[in-house]
Amino acid sequence: VRPITFLSDYGVADEFVGVVHAVLARLAPGATVIDLSHGVPRHAVLHGALALARTVPYAPPGVHLAVVDPGVGGDRRAVALRTREEDRLLVGPDNGLLLPAAERFGGVAEAVDVTTSAWRLEPVSATFHGRDVFAPVAGRLAAGAALADAGERLDPAGLVALSVPPPRTEAGGLVVRVVAVDGFGNVELLAGRDDLGPDGLRPGRIIEVRSGRARLVATLARTFGDVDEGEPLVYEDSSRALAIAVRGGDAAGLLGVQPGDEIRVAAVPGASG
Amino acid sequence: VRPITFLSDYGVADEFVGVVHAVLARLAPGATVIDLSHGVPRHAVLHGALALARTVPYAPPGVHLAVVDPGVGGDRRAVALRTREEDRLLVGPDNGLLLPAAERFGGVAEAVDVTTSAWRLEPVSATFHGRDVFAPVAGRLAAGAALADAGERLDPAGLVALSVPPPRTEAGGLVVRVVAVDGFGNVELLAGRDDLGPDGLRPGRIIEVRSGRARLVATLARTFGDVDEGEPLVYEDSSRALAIAVRGGDAAGLLGVQPGDEIRVAAVPGASG
Amino acid sequence: VRPITFLSDYGVADEFVGVVHAVLARLAPGATVIDLSHGVPRHAVLHGALALARTVPYAPPGVHLAVVDPGVGGDRRAVALRTREEDRLLVGPDNGLLLPAAERFGGVAEAVDVTTSAWRLEPVSATFHGRDVFAPVAGRLAAGAALADAGERLDPAGLVALSVPPPRTEAGGLVVRVVAVDGFGNVELLAGRDDLGPDGLRPGRIIEVRSGRARLVATLARTFGDVDEGEPLVYEDSSRALAIAVRGGDAAGLLGVQPGDEIRVAAVPGASG
Repeated sequence: VRPITFLSDYGVADEFVGVVHAVLARLAPGATVIDLSHGVPRHAVLHGALALARTVPYAPPGVHLAVVDPGVGGDRRAVALRTREEDRLLVGPDNGLLLPAAERFGGVAEAVDVTTSAWRLEPVSATFHGRDVFAPVAGRLAAGAALADAGERLDPAGLVALSVPPPRTEAGGLVVRVVAVDGFGNVELLAGRDDLGPDGLRPGRIIEVRSGRARLVATLARTFGDVDEGEPLVYEDSSRALAIAVRGGDAAGLLGVQPGDEIRVAAVPGASG
Repeated sequence: VRPITFLSDYGVADEFVGVVHAVLARLAPGATVIDLSHGVPRHAVLHGALALARTVPYAPPGVHLAVVDPGVGGDRRAVALRTREEDRLLVGPDNGLLLPAAERFGGVAEAVDVTTSAWRLEPVSATFHGRDVFAPVAGRLAAGAALADAGERLDPAGLVALSVPPPRTEAGGLVVRVVAVDGFGNVELLAGRDDLGPDGLRPGRIIEVRSGRARLVATLARTFGDVDEGEPLVYEDSSRALAIAVRGGDAAGLLGVQPGDEIRVAAVPGASG
Repeated sequence: VRPITFLSDYGVADEFVGVVHAVLARLAPGATVIDLSHGVPRHAVLHGALALARTVPYAPPGVHLAVVDPGVGGDRRAVALRTREEDRLLVGPDNGLLLPAAERFGGVAEAVDVTTSAWRLEPVSATFHGRDVFAPVAGRLAAGAALADAGERLDPAGLVALSVPPPRTEAGGLVVRVVAVDGFGNVELLAGRDDLGPDGLRPGRIIEVRSGRARLVATLARTFGDVDEGEPLVYEDSSRALAIAVRGGDAAGLLGVQPGDEIRVAAVPGASG
């Protein structure tokens, strides 16, 4: 039996996550099930897709179940994918959620439409495909069933992809998307060190950060300890993305931003902390 | 070793759930432990009982530990039960929490009072029987000990049952109890499709929903996608119960309701969305 | 493969905990991993240290990973310790977090500096040593690797210890530190029954509780059921510590206290509930 990872926007306030675990335990007895995160903001497919792509490479090869699914009950497809490298299996809605993770393993080698899989739990509810469609497919695959038996073969080229806007330059600054806000209020951006120009991550650079609500003057730092309590910093976070934080504070709260919002980031010429 | 499920009102802010897992790992090494939910509102026995009854059938047969226990430290009994079908074992307080789940498996075949079980961890605290009484009993049962050795045999007819008020008709509407509010603010009612009259779940019906604080005019829908963003809907949720939601919003917050509150639901004659 | 416990201040809103589980699953396949708690308040080392010391004794001997690490990315050391009794292995930052738990097992028999362990995941991030340093060390130790191979031997006498102020008497009352606030608002104090004088926990004693914001007149009780709904009580909690609660209410909210704050507790002479 193969390990299973599970990521969703279900939260931990109710029994959604627990019931999915129950279904998996029934179909794949003895499987290790790893909860990667259930704190993806509700219906935030891009956030979930990037979180999945960041976390799955740390997990052992196996079955990777992910559910962030605003289209549940509509006509979006449910899919199971096999990656070119490491034979990882990804299971979830066909809304772009799975593809960035698949790219980390050479892309999709084989895809199956499991919308009407024979493995579904009947009757299938309109709103809880995590339990009725995705978990049964993930569980049986983990237990060793063949991907081809999960549903109808489909052309990987027809899978729905996310459009991820690259950072753009505007009035001398970089306008970037907020990907995630963690439990501490740290703000992760859809940008990396190269987006900060030739000086990149040189510590001590002064970076102006602007949202619709507020303006922070932050120091480029390697770690929280490099700035004083209460001071803003820009840094490369543990996913190698640019991030904004306030030491001992809540940067997202100050900026009033959520995943999907845009922020303007600009180096202040000549200034240094 | 048998699988164990665990449901409680402990929340995940502190170490209560973790310590119960620690005790289980010691007594039933290698057991799969499935957290069904720890988000039951504090001391909400009816909510917990219904959540347990909804979720346990998805889990493999085994030991089902549940702790929602306002009477801890008082004179309520601690019990372990065996169901007539599938030989499932239920462990928890004797306050009605376990019985709806037992009913899903033909009712209680055998009951044991474990209040002073020889398996308890001494000294038994006054406030944390999850750790000191229930987990030790659940862990040893999962490891294969006999139910009869857990404590004193007791007559299942003497178990405490919950009184669950059925929906009632009032002024042309249906007055129903709120069973649960999920992490999205969706409101689950103690009512099913048959309570909506002969038209049942016909999509497009207009349903007036009234609480003490607010009134929503909702559309009967099969899924969230059937209404516009921000619009209220009434639907059959994944537990086959009637539920109220606002697409992309927080129905419980708008209505100002919590589990246990009553709501009046009435079809608007002739109207259709 | 040995069981692993995991305690941190990561919270459950994002994927930090999940990624650590992923790394552990890769390095110690089949290991039972027990989440003791991830609700330690951010950077609250004393709180985390006491929670670890309270919970680890309930877990089977194995590897005990703990991360509450305000100094991450600075020059604090990362360490792995072996206890004198039961051969438990503790892995975490060298900031005092691990020592109270080690004391429960006779203290530290062997200590290793793993800051630059050969087992680290490269490149090591500046901010997420849970993933890049601590989890790889914990996982390999659980899988059977030798502690001596984890890094450089170090003298246990040089480990950083926490200074924990004992309760002090002031103006006829006892000034004690708040150790923890649980999810219900119950306030755990760094004090035990002996700190309440010769009458100790005699039920019915009246105890005045004062914080900077409020004053509560509480009854010394054995359990919540001993006082009326809405009434304050002082009791011995499940960790054998003195605690303050309001039945069905939020004592910490009323008192306006957080872990680390001080509270004055004084028996009211002659009074009895």
